[in-house]
This record gives sequence, C-alpha cells and structure tokens, in this order.
Amino acid sequence: MPTDKVPDIVVGRLPLYLRTLNYLIEEGYEIVSSHELGRRLGISPAQIRKDLSHFGEFGKQGAGYDVKYLSSQLKHILHVEGVWPVALVGCGALGHALANYNGFVTKGFEITLIFDNDPAKIGQVVAGKVIHDVADMPRLICEHGIRIAIVAVPSSAAQATVDVLVRCQVRAILNYAPINISVPPGVQVQNIDPAVHLQRMTYYL
Amino acid sequence: MPTDKVPDIVVGRLPLYLRTLNYLIEEGYEIVSSHELGRRLGISPAQIRKDLSHFGEFGKQGAGYDVKYLSSQLKHILHVEGVWPVALVGCGALGHALANYNGFVTKGFEITLIFDNDPAKIGQVVAGKVIHDVADMPRLICEHGIRIAIVAVPSSAAQATVDVLVRCQVRAILNYAPINISVPPGVQVQNIDPAVHLQRMTYYL
Repeated sequence: MPTDKVPDIVVGRLPLYLRTLNYLIEEGYEIVSSHELGRRLGISPAQIRKDLSHFGEFGKQGAGYDVKYLSSQLKHILHVEGVWPVALVGCGALGHALANYNGFVTKGFEITLIFDNDPAKIGQVVAGKVIHDVADMPRLICEHGIRIAIVAVPSSAAQATVDVLVRCQVRAILNYAPINISVPPGVQVQNIDPAVHLQRMTYYL
Repeated sequence: MPTDKVPDIVVGRLPLYLRTLNYLIEEGYEIVSSHELGRRLGISPAQIRKDLSHFGEFGKQGAGYDVKYLSSQLKHILHVEGVWPVALVGCGALGHALANYNGFVTKGFEITLIFDNDPAKIGQVVAGKVIHDVADMPRLICEHGIRIAIVAVPSSAAQATVDVLVRCQVRAILNYAPINISVPPGVQVQNIDPAVHLQRMTYYL
C-alpha cells in the first residue's frame, strides 16, 4: 500500500471512518455506500473515496464497502488491531474520568499505569489500577514497554512530565494540559483543550 | 477588517495564539516576535504573520507584537471579551470534571446550567450549581439565553440531546459523545474523542 505520503489531515479522518463503521456493524450493516458514510460523517462521498484510495482498493465502484472488511483494514492501517498499554499521568477529576472511561479498549487502548504526585492519592485504586508515584514513572514505563501516554496534569507541570515521558521512549502523547508542549521529532502530540474548541466556535457566533 | 473569508483552519489556530499570548502576559512579556510565538507553538513565524494578516495590522515589520494589544484583539475577534454562559448536559465522571474545571472563565466561558437525566443526581450540587432535570432543558436554556452547550452524555443519547439543544437556539456544541452528531446549517460543532486522537497518533507508531 502506498502509504508513505498520506496527508496528515487524511490520517485524522481515518479514526472517524473507523468509528462510524463500528456503529454500522452494531446496527447490522454488511455493506455501506460512500454516500451513507458521508451522510453520517458530514463529509462528501468523493472525499471519503479519495481518502481511502490512499490505502488501496476497498470497494468496487457502485457496490459499496464491506463494512467489516473496511473496519478491519482501517484497524490495521491505524495499528489498533491489538490493545496498546497506555500510561495516564495526573489523576485529578479529569484523570479519574479518563481512568474510568470504558470506551478505550474497543478502540485499541487500555490505561495500564496511572501516576500522580499527590501523596494522598498514591497507593489508592482507581478503575482497578493502583495510582503510582510519578517518581516511579521511568522505571514502570520502561518495564511495561509503554509507548503512549495521556497527560492530565496542571499546565505548570506539563512540560516536565512530557520531558520524562519522552526520555522513557513514549512516542505518542495525548495532552490535556492547556499549554503547548515541546517534543523532539518523532514524538506525536495531540492536544485536547475544551476552551480552545469553544473559542473556535464563538468566532462564528 | 476583511474577516469574511478566513479559512476555518486559520480560525482554529487563533485560540492557540490567544492562549500563548496569555501565558506571555503572565510571564511579563510586553512585546513578542512572531519567531518566539512560533517557537512556542511549533508553527512557522511566516504562518503566524499570514494568519494574523487576515484580521488587520497588529505589528510593524521587525518590531514584534504588543502582547496585551494582540491578546485583546484576538479576544475581540473570537468574541470572548465577555463570558458566555454555557449549558453542560450529562454529569457523569466527565461532566463532573468539566463542571469543576476552573480554566473556562478566563477563556470566556462559564458553565451556568448543568443537566442530567438520573433522578439520583437531579437536585445535587456540583461546583456550586444544581443539577437540573434534562426535561427542564428547553425552559431553562431559553430563560438563560444559552447559545453554547457541552454534551457529555452517552453516545446513545447524544443525537436526541443535540436535537433539543438546537431547538432551544443553541448554536455551538462541544460534543464529548464518541459519535458523529447531525446539526442544521448555522450550528457549530466541535468533537472531542480521546480514542480518535490516540488512533491518529498510532498510525505513525
């Protein structure tokens, strides 16, 4: 598959396609047209066909896509056929919500390590996992071969946390701290800041 | 200001510029170059200058930007000079975390109404606000003139919730339910789904 030059914006849509295909499977669909996919996603059918064409042929013109097959292929492309162990750093209110979120495993992720720096929290159990001292991050992340982390610490601690994670060979960071973090080349970062999302909308109000 | 045809991707970067400017103010900066802004944001200085040029002249070539002035102008452009009242629908673990998040007000938002459909939660107080019955959404959202809502309900309830919000004249929806929702033209939607963000990164691992 000629995947070497896929634009990042296309990559960003693939998880949405996969998510929608999995709802279609639950609903009993076996075949779906690019029109139906597009209707559900608010994306044009032509865009969907063009996006998928980066990765090969997934359907015959006019015949629609085999839902299960396309879903399995997208899981393969996105490297989520298995389950990645994930470290969660910061177990405040948001960290608790993330630790208890039951939507990760079916998408290819499981929070297997939780860290906090609050002595009152260290040793407590959240969602069946012990909260570890952040001081133990390097050792535990290394032992567990963790490559993905979720950062839910205050802004003031975010960069230092990320620096440790990067030294521990973490290569993908989902950052909930409302601040831009710096990482070396080869480390992926995605940011979630609800205020940023809200401001993007108020522009249009 | 010739703001009528600003690409959405440019609009999406403005809140990041504003966020960084506000950190610079806290750090005591009065002037910032596009190079320093770019370094902090991982965006090229040329891109920043081009983005801002959509909205007028904010600095002289070589002199840098007046941090407070640019911040105030971006607040004006993004319509976050005041504080928007926001409705939060769904008060599970994530809803609780959002209700208690203290980063909204300085960014132009305040959660003023909280709703849930669980009789055990209705009437309880979270972050100083009473949890209301979702059945009272239409009346209360209308009375409070709410235009912005955060949806933190299960996927199965998301579309029905959004339909009610849209009928109540809500025009901007931050959707945490991991499902695509449909809205009529003129209603803004932003989606936050951590699994989607994670999958976008595992593609590169």
